[in-house]
Amino acid sequence: MFGQIQESTDPAAVLETIWSELAVGVETGRHAFHTPALAISGRDGPSVRTVVLREADSRERLLICHTDIRSPKIALLRENPLVQWLFYDREQKTQLRISGLAELHHDDILAEQRWKSSRPGSRACYAQPLGPGEILRDSAAEAGTTMDGYGNFVVLRSRVEMIDWLYLRAGGHLRLRFDWRDGQWHAQRIAP
Amino acid sequence: MFGQIQESTDPAAVLETIWSELAVGVETGRHAFHTPALAISGRDGPSVRTVVLREADSRERLLICHTDIRSPKIALLRENPLVQWLFYDREQKTQLRISGLAELHHDDILAEQRWKSSRPGSRACYAQPLGPGEILRDSAAEAGTTMDGYGNFVVLRSRVEMIDWLYLRAGGHLRLRFDWRDGQWHAQRIAP
Repeated sequence: MFGQIQESTDPAAVLETIWSELAVGVETGRHAFHTPALAISGRDGPSVRTVVLREADSRERLLICHTDIRSPKIALLRENPLVQWLFYDREQKTQLRISGLAELHHDDILAEQRWKSSRPGSRACYAQPLGPGEILRDSAAEAGTTMDGYGNFVVLRSRVEMIDWLYLRAGGHLRLRFDWRDGQWHAQRIAP
Repeated sequence: MFGQIQESTDPAAVLETIWSELAVGVETGRHAFHTPALAISGRDGPSVRTVVLREADSRERLLICHTDIRSPKIALLRENPLVQWLFYDREQKTQLRISGLAELHHDDILAEQRWKSSRPGSRACYAQPLGPGEILRDSAAEAGTTMDGYGNFVVLRSRVEMIDWLYLRAGGHLRLRFDWRDGQWHAQRIAP
């Protein structure tokens, strides 16, 4: 919880709270951090969509979501793997912008491991005959499902390089920027 | 409200609902559409932040938010004015992704008009001595406010070219893509 943070709070403690809130977001469907926005740059401009946060690992600096290999964002990410995640919790008056490089894991150890631990309801999307964003022409022909969705399942893992934390506190907004450099986090107070 | 929309609903009716929900989002602080994410492409990758939706005009196809001329996104937008807005309403199970070209209005008729109609609380941000994202070094020296924030106030107005509507309905997800072409909206059903 960000509620106890003051202007005098050590940035290291803020960073710890950020990662612990992200971990709560992974586990809690109703937490605002469960469904961040993920932004990608494309030739035709930026794109951004809501994703489900599947893992947040502070030690390895990793954020993970799942996607479909047929999604248009796969091609965009292969051209330019830079991404930014946006977490916004209106109740906690907190915004996190987190930048990193995305790696795509398809049919490898990580994909297999995360596929096995995912729920049947989540898996069903990947077994649809048409990939996300494809044009629907004939509902009847497209109503079936393929045998298995695993072939379409992709783990998007990004290693965090920058965290911009903004806390819209009633007593005055607080903002810190954390940059990963030379094997450690460097914090700076910046104007909100 | 999107709750009444079925697979058989006319896309024109869906589009009308989209714009009317955006208008509700403008007026209602607690509506999820009040605080969309705005994505921009930069040299160092994409960036995305929460903004406040100030206007949604279906007739002119405009979305408006306010920003500070000292914000780093101003330089990014001057290089590449393509933006995408993301609206996500968890309660209504609805996501909107809206693409357009951003125009920046600074010290012109639109800026003046919107400044005059904005509340003192909103204006105060623009009167801070440091612009958003600037590094804070000396709290004492930076505690004052400038005379007037109007000089920093920018209206970001984008004309909508594409709307991607996704409705995560329990009975089967629905998705429609609307493209503005040749003076009218063209709708296509696409895979969710």
